[in-house]
Amino acid sequence: MNIERMHTGERASKIVKHNGVVYLSGQVGTSDDSIHDQTQQCLDKIDAFLAEAGSSKEQLLQVTVWLSDMGHFADMNAVWNAWVPTGFAPARACGEAKLARVGLKVEIIVTAAY
Amino acid sequence: MNIERMHTGERASKIVKHNGVVYLSGQVGTSDDSIHDQTQQCLDKIDAFLAEAGSSKEQLLQVTVWLSDMGHFADMNAVWNAWVPTGFAPARACGEAKLARVGLKVEIIVTAAY
Amino acid sequence: MNIERMHTGERASKIVKHNGVVYLSGQVGTSDDSIHDQTQQCLDKIDAFLAEAGSSKEQLLQVTVWLSDMGHFADMNAVWNAWVPTGFAPARACGEAKLARVGLKVEIIVTAAY
Repeated sequence: MNIERMHTGERASKIVKHNGVVYLSGQVGTSDDSIHDQTQQCLDKIDAFLAEAGSSKEQLLQVTVWLSDMGHFADMNAVWNAWVPTGFAPARACGEAKLARVGLKVEIIVTAAY
Repeated sequence: MNIERMHTGERASKIVKHNGVVYLSGQVGTSDDSIHDQTQQCLDKIDAFLAEAGSSKEQLLQVTVWLSDMGHFADMNAVWNAWVPTGFAPARACGEAKLARVGLKVEIIVTAAY
Repeated sequence: MNIERMHTGERASKIVKHNGVVYLSGQVGTSDDSIHDQTQQCLDKIDAFLAEAGSSKEQLLQVTVWLSDMGHFADMNAVWNAWVPTGFAPARACGEAKLARVGLKVEIIVTAAY
């Protein structure tokens, strides 16, 4: 059971694959953009990383969403729901946490199968 | 390695099974109930979902607990400790995070074997 | 696919092994020590638990870092970056969350292969 890493920096790898499961680093969008736009930017990055890992949003297992302000819950969910393929929704949890930079409104952490 | 989902909505599946591991969506109780009651409600739901997934609290792997107020740590733990079977405790972490609705005091995120 | 637990208390096991993946309980340092020292203490404990589990920091999969104050991000990362072996960085996410005791500045949650 080898580990395969992609986009590996000194702090983190964007993608880590092991034994049929791919772990992505927490994805964020552009600081100060709207919650709608930041959520879409996260999901676009996730689509790209999953494709690179040989996975897809039809193979999501577990997703954690952090919002810097829970007041953005409905707006984040609108973008999320439009993105998740019908019948393929993962296990999910959402909590409020300040993120690494002021102006970041959402971070999405994905585990998927490949 | 197929993925099996149960109770799948547009946002999330309550249960996702893959390769011997079951991921549950974050479970919460009834807003404004006491921390004791909300914790017990979470654990009752987790018992039911694990049973449905062919798992049990004897097969917990990793659990994350979010409390909206860390002042509830001792009361949550009293309910938790009474629930966990002796000798079967999972890896666990507990942090403070505001949850999706005001009045929610605890959310529990479970990964287990099946 | 048996589950193996080590350092099992009534609340949590420090180490849970299953199907090639080891889950560690969230690790913290000594309350009121500096962020530098607390981060190093976490990582020292993680090194020891991974060794006990037959794993190592060359086999990290997914890491979540909680900081009680995101103002400690740079100082935590300096210790983290010095610890992670070049080319072996895991998927990582970092959010702000108050921790179980006042004075705790960082908690690190690790999943690794063994």
